[in-house]
Amino acid sequence: MSGKKKVLVAIMDGLGDRGCPEFGGRTPLQATPTPNMDWFVANGSAGLMDVIAPGVRPGSDTAHLSLLGYDSHRVYTGRGPFEAAGIGLVGRRGDVAFRCNFATVDGNMSVTDRRAGRIKEPDTTELVKALSGLSFDGIEALVREGTEHRAALILRGKGLDPNVTDVDPHELAPILESKPKAPPAAATADALNRFVARSHEILSKHPVNVRRRKEGLPEANILLPRGAGSFPDIDPFPEVWGVRAAGVAGVGMIKGVCGVCGLDVVEPPAVCTGGMDSDFGAKMAKALDALGGYDFVLVNFKAPDVCGHDGDAKAKAAVIAKLDKAFGYLRENMPKDLVVAFTADHSTPCGLLDHGGDPVPLCIYSDGVAPDEATTFDEVSVARGRIGRIRGMDLLPICMDLANRSEKFGA
Amino acid sequence: MSGKKKVLVAIMDGLGDRGCPEFGGRTPLQATPTPNMDWFVANGSAGLMDVIAPGVRPGSDTAHLSLLGYDSHRVYTGRGPFEAAGIGLVGRRGDVAFRCNFATVDGNMSVTDRRAGRIKEPDTTELVKALSGLSFDGIEALVREGTEHRAALILRGKGLDPNVTDVDPHELAPILESKPKAPPAAATADALNRFVARSHEILSKHPVNVRRRKEGLPEANILLPRGAGSFPDIDPFPEVWGVRAAGVAGVGMIKGVCGVCGLDVVEPPAVCTGGMDSDFGAKMAKALDALGGYDFVLVNFKAPDVCGHDGDAKAKAAVIAKLDKAFGYLRENMPKDLVVAFTADHSTPCGLLDHGGDPVPLCIYSDGVAPDEATTFDEVSVARGRIGRIRGMDLLPICMDLANRSEKFGA
Repeated sequence: MSGKKKVLVAIMDGLGDRGCPEFGGRTPLQATPTPNMDWFVANGSAGLMDVIAPGVRPGSDTAHLSLLGYDSHRVYTGRGPFEAAGIGLVGRRGDVAFRCNFATVDGNMSVTDRRAGRIKEPDTTELVKALSGLSFDGIEALVREGTEHRAALILRGKGLDPNVTDVDPHELAPILESKPKAPPAAATADALNRFVARSHEILSKHPVNVRRRKEGLPEANILLPRGAGSFPDIDPFPEVWGVRAAGVAGVGMIKGVCGVCGLDVVEPPAVCTGGMDSDFGAKMAKALDALGGYDFVLVNFKAPDVCGHDGDAKAKAAVIAKLDKAFGYLRENMPKDLVVAFTADHSTPCGLLDHGGDPVPLCIYSDGVAPDEATTFDEVSVARGRIGRIRGMDLLPICMDLANRSEKFGA
Repeated sequence: MSGKKKVLVAIMDGLGDRGCPEFGGRTPLQATPTPNMDWFVANGSAGLMDVIAPGVRPGSDTAHLSLLGYDSHRVYTGRGPFEAAGIGLVGRRGDVAFRCNFATVDGNMSVTDRRAGRIKEPDTTELVKALSGLSFDGIEALVREGTEHRAALILRGKGLDPNVTDVDPHELAPILESKPKAPPAAATADALNRFVARSHEILSKHPVNVRRRKEGLPEANILLPRGAGSFPDIDPFPEVWGVRAAGVAGVGMIKGVCGVCGLDVVEPPAVCTGGMDSDFGAKMAKALDALGGYDFVLVNFKAPDVCGHDGDAKAKAAVIAKLDKAFGYLRENMPKDLVVAFTADHSTPCGLLDHGGDPVPLCIYSDGVAPDEATTFDEVSVARGRIGRIRGMDLLPICMDLANRSEKFGA
């Protein structure tokens, strides 16, 4: 068997679309010249992909799990673990994760500010330090700050169960006592309530809050957990495929999916903002750089999704034109022994303002793959390609096979 | 997320075919101009569909279950429940249904006429009335008359099991005692035998049979149950999709599938005969009318299947030409916010005289869906469309997604 290749999977978030009146019923991708993406299609293979299944509207989390070869229906347990992992708090099997807000409560434990005046670093960093090392009857609590007032909490110990209600009242009201939704979750709810009470004691007395009181700022005297989810039972990607793997992404949830699947997270340069002004070329360069130290790199470009949610087809077309230049950079700078796949994690049709269940266009390129009859990259013309219509879960095995990295099944 | 659309799924029963010598090896659909169906294809998307799975020959019941999004391999339990539901006797989970004949037995309980002289309404209506309210140790019997000598029976109670043999000997012979095929079905077989004995007592003395004896007609002095099947464990379609749903169909089994799945059954006008002389335009108009009160409507056109079973390719072509006019009516009269899908439930190749396992052509049209490269509706040219080749079970999720009615999986 010949030498192993490296693999680059580029995800253009929410790229797929439906016919837009701005473009006479064509999609933004159909309406925008993409000579570089088209070069890959003309010299590679193309097709359509149902990221989860036909007609199913994927979230970005379930979609990226599928694109990494996992069965989302089996491993997805909710948003909490990926949000936690997205800010670097990667749990393990059996852990229960929560999204949290630093908030302000009065003497009656009623919330007066759900964001504690949009408190941020370095205050949150100091407060989180004071909460480290708490444990309750063998259940350990791990806390990490996110952006602004956001944080994540992991409970770690034996017999934990994510089937508990929120402490966060989601409005200016007394905080709630977490309750088990079923009897096996009683110990988890109890540990969570004790964590909230103990953290309130610690935070109330903390010098940061003493100072904020003096300065007339809302105290961050409580952490309000919500959205319990258990860490999914996932075989780490590097072990499954025997590769060094990294994800280049700016969005917390995508970083979280990468983290939970065992990929190293590579931070994009600051010029990659995640918005329409993002420097896609710099992110593509970062992904190519990462291929120096990794065998597999996934890179996510967030901007097309933002345009779809905004319903701005013309902005989406402009983003696509800019993205195509990043593929020009890739084309000129990629190593010879590389398998390149590019696609979307889902459509975000501008007419829908949310994720759609449409199949997304896919191109797989590798030096030596016989080109098919598809020559342009859009939602319709890739149907002429020989990939046909596949599921998102199938993408990784195809790429790994073309990279000469898959095991033979049978003799 | 933008506004919800309504959905019309039109099933041309047995439409698909194979090459016919009458048409120089082309299919009836290839050989017949279908300008209106072609308009939908040219302005929508097209592809091929394996209603169950590649090469599997569907029944009309399993096919329609798939087309309503159910996994037939999981939910299908036999023909009985759909036949019962088709004549309006819709059972629920746990019920066991039987197809029955009104028949004539002599003094030795031997069948002398399996159809009791093709007895029909109003006699059967009177006889069924006399059988209402029977019960045996907590097992209730529900009976309903069908067309002519046909009827349906439901046994309802705890612990029923469809694993019992027929009472109907299927020939002029002594009636059979129903036996359990496995021990857990003993109580069901016992209740069934007691129902048959008791109904024989009641029917023998019934004034309708006294009159028939006098007139020299065969008495309908027994009901002969056969084909036990339990009502499938089906989540009602309106609950699954959050829609008001109806089926427009004339064929009992299709009405039965609709009824079992929780769709309201809308009777087509009398000019819709189910045969080659049926007024397809009137049925399409009825389906469009139904969309006034329902979010989802399935309409079934039976005639192409009849031609296939008859092996009459030219009649099938004539039916297709007439059907195309009904699609012209649809095209001119449909509301703007409608998702239209049209296809077949299976092929009924004229050379086969029965259902085939061929993939069937499919078109999905909705205002704003970017058209693909397919422009004509037949078994071959739809392969140029971007739907590719999907399974019957996937059709509903795709339609509901395009109608903005599907839930997001993930965040």
